[in-house]
Amino acid sequence: MYVAVLAGGSGTRLWPRSRGETPKHLLNLVRPDVTMLQETVGRMLPIVAPEDVYVVTNARHAEAVREQLPQVPPENVLAEPVGRNSGPAVGYAAAHVHKRDPQGVMLVLPADHVILKEEDFRAVAQTGARTAEYGNLVTLGITPTSPDTGYGYMETGEVIMTVDGRPVRAVLRFTEKPDLETATRYVESGQYVWNSGMFMWQASTILEEMRQYMPGLFAALTALEPVLRTSEEAVEIERLWPGLEDRSIDYGVLERSRKVVTLPVDIGWSDVGDWATLAEFCPRDEHGNALLGDAMAFGCRDSLVYSSGRLITAIGLEDMIVVDTGDAVLVCPKSRAQEVRKVVDRLKAEQRRNHL
Amino acid sequence: MYVAVLAGGSGTRLWPRSRGETPKHLLNLVRPDVTMLQETVGRMLPIVAPEDVYVVTNARHAEAVREQLPQVPPENVLAEPVGRNSGPAVGYAAAHVHKRDPQGVMLVLPADHVILKEEDFRAVAQTGARTAEYGNLVTLGITPTSPDTGYGYMETGEVIMTVDGRPVRAVLRFTEKPDLETATRYVESGQYVWNSGMFMWQASTILEEMRQYMPGLFAALTALEPVLRTSEEAVEIERLWPGLEDRSIDYGVLERSRKVVTLPVDIGWSDVGDWATLAEFCPRDEHGNALLGDAMAFGCRDSLVYSSGRLITAIGLEDMIVVDTGDAVLVCPKSRAQEVRKVVDRLKAEQRRNHL
Repeated sequence: MYVAVLAGGSGTRLWPRSRGETPKHLLNLVRPDVTMLQETVGRMLPIVAPEDVYVVTNARHAEAVREQLPQVPPENVLAEPVGRNSGPAVGYAAAHVHKRDPQGVMLVLPADHVILKEEDFRAVAQTGARTAEYGNLVTLGITPTSPDTGYGYMETGEVIMTVDGRPVRAVLRFTEKPDLETATRYVESGQYVWNSGMFMWQASTILEEMRQYMPGLFAALTALEPVLRTSEEAVEIERLWPGLEDRSIDYGVLERSRKVVTLPVDIGWSDVGDWATLAEFCPRDEHGNALLGDAMAFGCRDSLVYSSGRLITAIGLEDMIVVDTGDAVLVCPKSRAQEVRKVVDRLKAEQRRNHL
Repeated sequence: MYVAVLAGGSGTRLWPRSRGETPKHLLNLVRPDVTMLQETVGRMLPIVAPEDVYVVTNARHAEAVREQLPQVPPENVLAEPVGRNSGPAVGYAAAHVHKRDPQGVMLVLPADHVILKEEDFRAVAQTGARTAEYGNLVTLGITPTSPDTGYGYMETGEVIMTVDGRPVRAVLRFTEKPDLETATRYVESGQYVWNSGMFMWQASTILEEMRQYMPGLFAALTALEPVLRTSEEAVEIERLWPGLEDRSIDYGVLERSRKVVTLPVDIGWSDVGDWATLAEFCPRDEHGNALLGDAMAFGCRDSLVYSSGRLITAIGLEDMIVVDTGDAVLVCPKSRAQEVRKVVDRLKAEQRRNHL
């Protein structure tokens, strides 16, 4: 089994901690001593050799990724000169795996998710690998715990096979971030799972599907193939990538292919996309407060107070978020954690590069 | 007319801006370019000569006071080696005024209050001076605008004289910070005024009352008198002050003397004792937000966001206070602004001197 970690996201809604130079996956958000990327790779190392781990990231972060993952061979950190969404990133990793082992199964993992049940996850990955060997595009589907409107949903169909005693279901339809009413209906029906962004397939299978559904990308990967693992690779990527379409693997392949199945899993997963979600994964006191760093709370409940060094004092807060970094402070109710995006948009509009 | 500014308070509830080294009166809280002390003195200078202004302050702040008030003679800044509340502070200033002009009228002013109607205030001061010349202890009484439990109240009696067309009333009783029910009753009765802490009297009158009601203080002032304005003054103060009782002028004299009257005034006064009150005196946008410094608000209402330099971003706040200084941040609903005191108490208990 190979692992392809996609480390191209930014984590906009986790501003002011996530920044252009230090995107979410490079941060120690959930555990003080380990970054999201290190957790993502580290939890696979009991069953995957470090030289079988690939990380696709933007060239500007490649050095930081290599520093954070000293056990992974530096040439396995694949640097994209420009980000073109997950389609090209998956393609780039698939080309590398394919050159070594065409039938090799890749586990595609976003670099910045939480998985609490690590043992269960590794077992699921083994099952997923066996499922992928039948030529399937395997999506890991999360049983929804709430009508979250921040996730993509997959409508599941009948059980088409059973692997290791686990049912593998057909996927009938993808729905991106539905409204609350729709999401509630989905969850109540019991027929939907969240799209975790974690996938498994053979390199040959996904490349074959790209040939059909993302021909531009497939052509670029074909041009790239002869120079992979040579000194020409960086030059060729530099030449090819700017011309690629910006397209997710979901939209580019999964929503069209007939080979998509889902393995419903229960692994304590979250994409921890915003501060309110992150707060659920932080250690909390008896009043539900997550107090990180030099934070003092007086009569607060269910709030997250994060200090990166200075003293933060909070009085009488309920369901609030206070995040302090060296140069910026965010104060926001948990219910509005999605709107951190607006702050970042405003900073971009005002060209405040120091804060981006 | 002489002015005696009492600059001995700390402004605990305005932490983290007010600190031991920079108490409230030394801060530019309401106007960006002027400190509370400078406003207090500056608003009297149209009718009082700078050499007739005295400031009583703790020795540790005397140099800062002199720097902020270059027009006031440095020897008029009276340095107490230890704070002993307002009784000794008033006595010290009264001794100085008395030495120059026994019948001189002193206007006693806290150094850290807001007065919006400056013209009216100066007119009131002239009337107060004439009232004081009859041998009264004149308190400036504020007509309550709400049942505020943070103020002292005075029950007023009959009109005992009229000066400049203004009624001067007897004071029947002082009440320190009543509970809400009592305060509501007071305000509804129309018989009570707030004790502003601003007083007027002849130096000879207050010293005579001190002889009767604060004999220990009076003895100290008598011992001090011969060395006032000599090089011995500091030595003698250093010797006498530690032995004085800690007592306010209200409790020491005003609640006992039969010479107390009140001049009800309407001068746009506030003691701006906490962040919620201060917010009312800050410029606000159309949503009622006071955004000071590098502060950004998204969907906020009636909130105060103060930055001393770094970027502060606030989303969806209502009636909240966010205050950032170089080394500390406070987040608190306006309704709990009094509890900032608890933060300071905790910092003291933990001996966190850097933050005090």
